[in-house]
Amino acid sequence: MGLIVQKYGGSSVADAEGLKRVANRIVATKKAGHQVVVVVSAMGDTTDELLELAEQVSPMPNGRELDMLLTAGERISMALLAMAIGNTGHEAQSFTGSQAGVITTSTHGRARIIDVAPGRILDALKEGAIAIVAGFQGISQDTKDVTTLGRGGSDTTAVALAAALDADVCEIYTDVDGVFSADPRVVPAARKLKTVTYEEMLELAASGAKVLHLRCVEYARRYNLPIHVRSSFSNNEGTWVVKDHPEGDAMEQAIISGIAHDKSEAKITVVGVPDRTGIAARIFQAIADADINIDMIVQNVSAAATGLTDISFTLPKSEGANATALLHKIQGEIGFQSIQYDDQVGKLSLVGAGMRSHPGVTATFFACLADAGVNIEMISTSEIRISVICRESDLEKGVKAAHTAFELDSTGEEAVVYGGTGR
Amino acid sequence: MGLIVQKYGGSSVADAEGLKRVANRIVATKKAGHQVVVVVSAMGDTTDELLELAEQVSPMPNGRELDMLLTAGERISMALLAMAIGNTGHEAQSFTGSQAGVITTSTHGRARIIDVAPGRILDALKEGAIAIVAGFQGISQDTKDVTTLGRGGSDTTAVALAAALDADVCEIYTDVDGVFSADPRVVPAARKLKTVTYEEMLELAASGAKVLHLRCVEYARRYNLPIHVRSSFSNNEGTWVVKDHPEGDAMEQAIISGIAHDKSEAKITVVGVPDRTGIAARIFQAIADADINIDMIVQNVSAAATGLTDISFTLPKSEGANATALLHKIQGEIGFQSIQYDDQVGKLSLVGAGMRSHPGVTATFFACLADAGVNIEMISTSEIRISVICRESDLEKGVKAAHTAFELDSTGEEAVVYGGTGR
Repeated sequence: MGLIVQKYGGSSVADAEGLKRVANRIVATKKAGHQVVVVVSAMGDTTDELLELAEQVSPMPNGRELDMLLTAGERISMALLAMAIGNTGHEAQSFTGSQAGVITTSTHGRARIIDVAPGRILDALKEGAIAIVAGFQGISQDTKDVTTLGRGGSDTTAVALAAALDADVCEIYTDVDGVFSADPRVVPAARKLKTVTYEEMLELAASGAKVLHLRCVEYARRYNLPIHVRSSFSNNEGTWVVKDHPEGDAMEQAIISGIAHDKSEAKITVVGVPDRTGIAARIFQAIADADINIDMIVQNVSAAATGLTDISFTLPKSEGANATALLHKIQGEIGFQSIQYDDQVGKLSLVGAGMRSHPGVTATFFACLADAGVNIEMISTSEIRISVICRESDLEKGVKAAHTAFELDSTGEEAVVYGGTGR
Repeated sequence: MGLIVQKYGGSSVADAEGLKRVANRIVATKKAGHQVVVVVSAMGDTTDELLELAEQVSPMPNGRELDMLLTAGERISMALLAMAIGNTGHEAQSFTGSQAGVITTSTHGRARIIDVAPGRILDALKEGAIAIVAGFQGISQDTKDVTTLGRGGSDTTAVALAAALDADVCEIYTDVDGVFSADPRVVPAARKLKTVTYEEMLELAASGAKVLHLRCVEYARRYNLPIHVRSSFSNNEGTWVVKDHPEGDAMEQAIISGIAHDKSEAKITVVGVPDRTGIAARIFQAIADADINIDMIVQNVSAAATGLTDISFTLPKSEGANATALLHKIQGEIGFQSIQYDDQVGKLSLVGAGMRSHPGVTATFFACLADAGVNIEMISTSEIRISVICRESDLEKGVKAAHTAFELDSTGEEAVVYGGTGR
């Protein structure tokens, strides 16, 4: 008997059938003797439909009003889910972000959670009810206005609530079976991971793995809260995201846990930059002032004859036009020669806590890419990750080669499942 | 310069075009120097669509959750309307019923307003913003749960807010030009009324006129708040609902203000009821206990030979099956002979403060119905209303005949418009 927070995404509750299926799963958890708090996203395409309506009345909708509009989506799904549970004879009460005590900053569209004060949720649990909470939304501490949390908001709501309630586990239900050693659409032999550490998951999420959002993993790590990522369409054990790989597994732990790839970035090269102190800082300050996140940076060794160097960096494709315009604006001041913009790049990342104790990883990685005919254009590393930039058209070839080289390919013996008892 | 509360119904904001049209009208009012508070209903068929979703997941949805679900409708329309206003360069802030301080009883689905504490609305007005408020919803005083007000809820929200804000007028925008002397679909010569008193409007609403709901008129009368019913599709002056007809109009005031008709009622006759003290009370107590509203009641003079009488009453058709089942259950106890159920009846009502001083109204009314071949089955009167029950198939014939007999037919000189200045 424990307290379980479950989060269901929009695709799991896309229609009445989905809502009923999810209701049955929730009731089964309750019947197994647990207290259950559920965080739910808006149904299917609701958010997109609301955004389209907003666009029809205003090209630049006010942030406060856009948040008011979008939060209607979870209001609908949570009330329907509570009704569907009620229809099975169990009591469920739905709560908006505000009612659930999700207190945020007042930055509309991407508010951050400041605190969770789940008094009403605890009351509902005490009454024996299942609590259904709207994901993705909260109330601003200063203005008492409705806010939304932006990308990954519902996962973050679930983890934040689980932490505030001191839950035993936060289950994130999705339409895949868990976290895989690589994207199964690219690598059919990809294996479902039994466990992955917070650090690994953070690196994977930052490297393009879509299954969990960075913010929610950061939150879970801070509170040492186990996340169980699993499918809402099956009863299969999924992937546990935890502090450390379980001891029994340590011996057989692969060096590399997962391979992520990302096609959403572009590369900008600033050519012929005067190699003087402060010039690079000036460039990246301008980019940062425009609130553009950059990822990898490489500065070539300066050519002694000219005193000029090239600086390359990657950034989301969606920010490409914005960033190049910005750089052209400061070209006179900085005095570089030209800008090259390249949106045909892909990023390939190896992630694994095991690489700390295995110094040969980089060599094996580069060798396998070379054998596969993949040219490396940029390199960046952390303690448990190596990322390279290559041609976008070479990306999937590279993922497959690395997956095989690090012996991640499934052997068909995946029946052994990590129980995760007591977490 | 005054404070104006405007209410727009679902058909006025059914799509992006409607929202923009309404936004322009609101902005025009603001530009004319007024402070503006807007109450808005859910867009077009939203409420019906949400009800259909609810039915798909639960045949008997929980009241709290159904209210949570339905209130998403106004959340969507109010946010979009605020955006549409924002797009014209004016500031608008939307508020849920709870944020607007609409405090209600906790009867889900048909909560009553207990109090309105519009602090946030006043703040918005002070900042120079237009306040958009969700109609039809509030928050329960006891449980702090979201509630809905039931039929006529948005009109009631508007009037209650206008009263709490001490507004100069509450404008109810609809898809017709105002209150007419009869339903223009039945009587093409029906005239738009310049003014109608609260009492008359209450009688008209209770007699089947759909344009304003009973509750909202009751609220306005209690606070002596002028209502201006008008079309959102034109700039025509509509109908003012006020305490008294203006003095200048008193001389030319027609005896009858309006004729209402209603096809939604059925007639039940309890045949052969023992004419003893307490028997009628027992019958109507049983009906009242089942929360069924009855309208007209007629008890025949008892036949001396048998000591038996017949009791007839009318009630909403939707309650017919319920009521007959109930009566059959107490047949043994009461000892009546049989029940006759008739849902082919229509109700025709004459309403007018003028009939107080004109004793011949009843005679003129009955004579014109007789001339038109309409047989009267039941009669009920109040100080300013006469209602009769006839065959449903005779109803429209009767409405036309009465409209002509009381000289209500339009003469085509409707250009004179009551200004209502200073109200």
